[in-house]
Amino acid sequence: MTILFVSNDEAADVWMREIRAAASGIDLRQPAEIDEPESVVYAIVGRTRPGELRAYPNLRAILSMWAGVEHLLADETLPSHVPIVRMVEPSLTRGMVEYVCCHVLGSLLRVDRYETDRWDHPQRMAPRFAPDFPVGIMGMGVLGSACAKALLELGFPVNGWSRTGASIEGVTCFAGRDRLAAFLSVSRAVVLLLPNTPETRNILDRETFAGLATGAVVINAGRGELIDDDALLDALDAGRVERAVLDVFRTEPLPDDHPYWSHPSVTVTPHLASITDPRTAAPVLAENLARLERGEPVWPLVDRERGY
Amino acid sequence: MTILFVSNDEAADVWMREIRAAASGIDLRQPAEIDEPESVVYAIVGRTRPGELRAYPNLRAILSMWAGVEHLLADETLPSHVPIVRMVEPSLTRGMVEYVCCHVLGSLLRVDRYETDRWDHPQRMAPRFAPDFPVGIMGMGVLGSACAKALLELGFPVNGWSRTGASIEGVTCFAGRDRLAAFLSVSRAVVLLLPNTPETRNILDRETFAGLATGAVVINAGRGELIDDDALLDALDAGRVERAVLDVFRTEPLPDDHPYWSHPSVTVTPHLASITDPRTAAPVLAENLARLERGEPVWPLVDRERGY
Repeated sequence: MTILFVSNDEAADVWMREIRAAASGIDLRQPAEIDEPESVVYAIVGRTRPGELRAYPNLRAILSMWAGVEHLLADETLPSHVPIVRMVEPSLTRGMVEYVCCHVLGSLLRVDRYETDRWDHPQRMAPRFAPDFPVGIMGMGVLGSACAKALLELGFPVNGWSRTGASIEGVTCFAGRDRLAAFLSVSRAVVLLLPNTPETRNILDRETFAGLATGAVVINAGRGELIDDDALLDALDAGRVERAVLDVFRTEPLPDDHPYWSHPSVTVTPHLASITDPRTAAPVLAENLARLERGEPVWPLVDRERGY
Repeated sequence: MTILFVSNDEAADVWMREIRAAASGIDLRQPAEIDEPESVVYAIVGRTRPGELRAYPNLRAILSMWAGVEHLLADETLPSHVPIVRMVEPSLTRGMVEYVCCHVLGSLLRVDRYETDRWDHPQRMAPRFAPDFPVGIMGMGVLGSACAKALLELGFPVNGWSRTGASIEGVTCFAGRDRLAAFLSVSRAVVLLLPNTPETRNILDRETFAGLATGAVVINAGRGELIDDDALLDALDAGRVERAVLDVFRTEPLPDDHPYWSHPSVTVTPHLASITDPRTAAPVLAENLARLERGEPVWPLVDRERGY
């Protein structure tokens, strides 16, 4: 039984070393090292090229090294009976909590205006505090829930929006498209942690930006496709949106001539909000491989209809 | 009985309105409105000019609107028998927690390098997480303790250093000058929240910078006098200190030609880390006035020998 390792981006040597250390005795190989494709029963994958997994007829499950799997779902050659397991691991969650708390606090304190405003900084003139700055989190899965709890600890009121609703103590939860306008109108900062699906694409567009609280802050650590970029730039220029902190983009790396780079109210971060750490992800992969072998349930399984 | 209000910096109208609302019926006046200086028994003060309080022979207590009182202690005309009460109020503590968490997280995530490093950001290449980034807090009073608790919640290991020691669950506490080197050597980020006293002046100097963990981060939200500025600039240029976030300075506003403004590894913030909010400070002043009138203890009383 061979386990395939496919990554066209990540440091394969580091990942394979950590996975072998966590799941001792496994036969883990990269595509070029495989003589008998029939022997491959599991695949651990980062970025794959379309059709790349078609060579392995006996594939029983795909384990993603990433939280986002839309590139896999877009691969029409992938047999629909093969389950896909998304990555949820402690460092990825921790990194997202650190990123979101850092930039929600930075937006509250207007760190982007330190340099230009110097001593007459608006925060100095009219300090604003967490209890007056409700944060709305869109996407209340593992990452969204962890961010909600950390922001509550820091004193922010927290709203949560998701497709089907969530229940977290202290968080005001909104469910479904019908409640999106109500959610946006009471959230001073909006944190996007949604997956990229047909339902979520351009979820922040001209219509939804118009319903934001005036002076809202937009933080996107989900996927670039969630935002209509032109609508965001217009909302920024109109002052409806005070600031945007963007970690993800339709095209990555963000092209050098993109207006986001030079916009005074936009902070661009290079898709680093949450990075899988091989040291903590490898034990999760090992555990899931063992569970699959024992026929036990694995989590979180991708629902292809839902898109994540 | 008249209560004097002296502030040469703050918005007197806002403060006086809030204080009158919190302590109804009091006779609160600014210096120019006072006909009989003998009637003044309490003074609520922000910045005072040296000798300014000498005109009031029956002063029984001074209530500071600020946490820092070194300007009062430097006024040799102030009668030594008049107690001084420092300001501790919820917004001041909250603001400091927000500032410190924001900049500790920003230092962990290297937000200062987003623009220059773009897609090859070091955090992307080698992510670092809170558990590997111990924060050392110098000054474990109300502000330091509150910051320590919030940083622990965010997953940072926390060390605390103070003159006499402190005891906070989960915080490794160091007491006294003898233990300063040990404290600094195990703290990746050092947060200064000490008062400005003869003992704390230049507490970070060439000798102590030499004992910092390599790549340490220095965050000063205490007083400018705590740091030997030339030694810090040299430590930054030598790479011993990775980054400094400075909110307080020997001269404020920081002069336009000061090297801190243009140094690529220094973030200057214009003394806004923690600002007293009249809405939450006025009830504290009212309560302390009532306690003084009833002969009850007030807190925190300034110890002139200690210097804070």
